[in-house]
Amino acid sequence: MATLGMTTQLDAVGNLRGLWRPEGARSNRLVLGSHIDTVPDAGAFDGVLGVVLALEWIELAKDLKLPLAIEAIAFSEEEGVRFGVPFIGSRAVAGRFDPTLLALKDEDGIDVESAIKAFGIDPGETGKATVHDDAVGFVEIHIEQGPVLESEGLRVASVTSIVGQTRVSLEFTGRANHAGTTPMNLRRDALGAAAEWITGTEKLAARTEGLVATVGKVIVRPNAGNVIPGAVELSLDVRHVKDFVRRKAIEELVSLASSIAERRGLSVEWSKQLDEPAVPMDERLTAYLSDAIEAAGFPLKTMPSGAGHDAMVMAGRMPTAMLFLRSPGGISHNPAESVFEEDVEAALLVGRKFLERLAAEVR
Amino acid sequence: MATLGMTTQLDAVGNLRGLWRPEGARSNRLVLGSHIDTVPDAGAFDGVLGVVLALEWIELAKDLKLPLAIEAIAFSEEEGVRFGVPFIGSRAVAGRFDPTLLALKDEDGIDVESAIKAFGIDPGETGKATVHDDAVGFVEIHIEQGPVLESEGLRVASVTSIVGQTRVSLEFTGRANHAGTTPMNLRRDALGAAAEWITGTEKLAARTEGLVATVGKVIVRPNAGNVIPGAVELSLDVRHVKDFVRRKAIEELVSLASSIAERRGLSVEWSKQLDEPAVPMDERLTAYLSDAIEAAGFPLKTMPSGAGHDAMVMAGRMPTAMLFLRSPGGISHNPAESVFEEDVEAALLVGRKFLERLAAEVR
Repeated sequence: MATLGMTTQLDAVGNLRGLWRPEGARSNRLVLGSHIDTVPDAGAFDGVLGVVLALEWIELAKDLKLPLAIEAIAFSEEEGVRFGVPFIGSRAVAGRFDPTLLALKDEDGIDVESAIKAFGIDPGETGKATVHDDAVGFVEIHIEQGPVLESEGLRVASVTSIVGQTRVSLEFTGRANHAGTTPMNLRRDALGAAAEWITGTEKLAARTEGLVATVGKVIVRPNAGNVIPGAVELSLDVRHVKDFVRRKAIEELVSLASSIAERRGLSVEWSKQLDEPAVPMDERLTAYLSDAIEAAGFPLKTMPSGAGHDAMVMAGRMPTAMLFLRSPGGISHNPAESVFEEDVEAALLVGRKFLERLAAEVR
Repeated sequence: MATLGMTTQLDAVGNLRGLWRPEGARSNRLVLGSHIDTVPDAGAFDGVLGVVLALEWIELAKDLKLPLAIEAIAFSEEEGVRFGVPFIGSRAVAGRFDPTLLALKDEDGIDVESAIKAFGIDPGETGKATVHDDAVGFVEIHIEQGPVLESEGLRVASVTSIVGQTRVSLEFTGRANHAGTTPMNLRRDALGAAAEWITGTEKLAARTEGLVATVGKVIVRPNAGNVIPGAVELSLDVRHVKDFVRRKAIEELVSLASSIAERRGLSVEWSKQLDEPAVPMDERLTAYLSDAIEAAGFPLKTMPSGAGHDAMVMAGRMPTAMLFLRSPGGISHNPAESVFEEDVEAALLVGRKFLERLAAEVR
C-alpha cells in the first residue's frame, strides 16, 4: 500500500486499510477488499487473493491515471474461528459493530477487547472504523470455493446473491436394543429412521433447482456394533438464493422427519440453529461487473455464492458486488486450495474494464 | 450348594461348581448352569437366574428322590467384558481352553493368568476344569433378552439353535466438500451413500424370514454441519439360524454397497470382523425339554437364540439344550432388566417334568 502511495491505517478492530486518492480524483470512493484471516490447516488463497487483487486493481487505476478514489481493506476475523462469530472486521466497517462482541471469548478465555488491546489498538474506537460516507460501492474478489466454474470450464463469474441459510438440529429417538435378539418387526431403530430421512433430504435437494441440503454431522447413541441405535442426532444445512424456496424445503424436510418417525413408532425433535435470509448483490454494480467480464472477452457467468463473505455484511451499508475466480478441484479450506494464473490474469483484465467504466460514469 | 448336600469346587478358571449325587444315582451326570459375571450397568437376571434355577431344579430332584447325578456350574467370564474374549469359563469346562487365553490383558494391563492367581487359584490347572466324561447333557436356563416371548404372550420357550453371526466393517469414501458451494450433482457424499445402504440393509432383513441385520455404529468424517461427509465407517451385524441364509445376505449387502458406491462415484471397502456358524441345540435333549414344556401345561414355543451363550460352547462337548424365560419389555444389559415370578414358576414346573422324564429314561 505504501509503495503505491496510499495512506494506510489499522482500524480499531484490526482491519488493515489503505486509501488511494490521486490528484483530481472525485470525492466518492470505491471500496475493494476481502479478509486476511483464515481457518486452521487452510489454503493460501481464501480471502488473501482478494486483498492482493484489490491492490493490483489500484495499481491498474494508477497506471491508467483514472480519477478514482479507492479504499482497499484487508478485513480481520471473517471466518469466526477464534471467537465463534464471523465478520467482526466488516461489521465494524459497515457500522454494524455491536459492542457486546467485545465480550466474546476464545478457547483460552481471552475476550475480543483484550485481544484488540494486546494488538496495540484501542477497542474504544470501533465506532471510528465505520467506512467514510463518501463510499459509493464495495467490490470483493474471492475464489469460488466450489466446483461450478471448473465444471463449466470458466475462469470468472459475477455473483448475483449470497444464499440464505438455515441450520437445523434434529434428533430421532427410538429404543436401543440387542442386535441379536430383537426381530426386525419389533425394532424402533433410530438409525433406520435417520437413514430414510437423509435419503429423502438428498432427493428433495436434487429435484429443487439451486437448492443444497447437507447432513454433515451424525451422532449415534450408543454407537456400538451389537446394539440397535436408540437415538440419532443430525445436522441439516439448507441454502438457496430464494428465501421462500429455502423455507419451503425446511418445512417439507421437518414434515418428512415427523412422518418417518410416526410410521416407525419413534419420536423426533428439531430446533433451528440459524436462519439467515439471502443477501442479493446490488443490481447496478453487478451489471457493471458483468459487462466488464464480457468486455474483457470472457463468457458471462452469473451465479449465487453458497458461502458467506464480507460482501454480505457490506451490502447492508452500500451497493456491493462480488467477482468469483475458479477454484481448481473446487477445493478450499484445505492446503491443496489453489488458483490458476490465467484466472488471476482474467481478474486483472476484468478489473481494468470495470474501473475504466466506473471512472467514465461514476461521479 | 452346601445346604443341598452338594460337593462344591472352584475350578482353575473360577467356575463355581457343585455336584449332587444322591444314593443310588446312576453314574451319568446331567450338567446345569449359566454364568455369574455380567456387563457394566447391567440387570440382576442375565446369567444369574440360570444358576439359581439350576439349584432349584436340583432341589426338585432331591425332593422327588430322583436317582439323578447333577452338576451345577456358575460359569466365570461369559460376557468377555474384562479381557475382550467371551466364554472363558465354559471353554475350560468344554475342554476347549486355549492356554494363549492366559496372556489376554484387561484395561489395566493385568493378564488372565495373574487375575486367576490373584483369585487364589492355580492357572496351571485349567486342564482339570474339563467336565467329567460321565456328563451326558447340558441344559442352560436363561432370560430371552429379547421381545419375542412377551410379544406372543408366552412364558417360556425351548431354543432350537444359537444363530450364526457375521460382523463386517464397511467404509464409504467420497470427497469432503463445502456444504454451501458444492451443488448436489457435483457431490460425492459418503453419508448419502451410507444412508441409502442402511435403508437397503433394513429392507433386505425385513423381507428375509428370521434374519436380523443391524447397523449399530456410524463414524462420519469430518462430522461437521457445514461440510459434506468425505468418509463414513459403518458396522454391520447379521444373524440367522441358517448359515447359508446369513452368508447370502452378507453377499447381497456387500454387493449393494459396491453398486451404490459405483453409481455415486465413491469407493467402498469392507472387512469381515467375525464369522461364526450357527450352533444347533441337540435334537433329542431339546425334544425332552419341549415335551416338558407341554407336559407342564404351557404352549410349546421353539425359537433360535439371537445372542451367544455358554450353551454354544458346551454344545461342542455334549448334547445341549436351552430354556428361555420371557424378558419383560425385551430389556437386558440394563438395570431395568427383570423377570416375572410366574415365569420363574413355569421354569420350575418345566424342570420337574424334564427331570422326571430324564430319571425314567436316561441310563
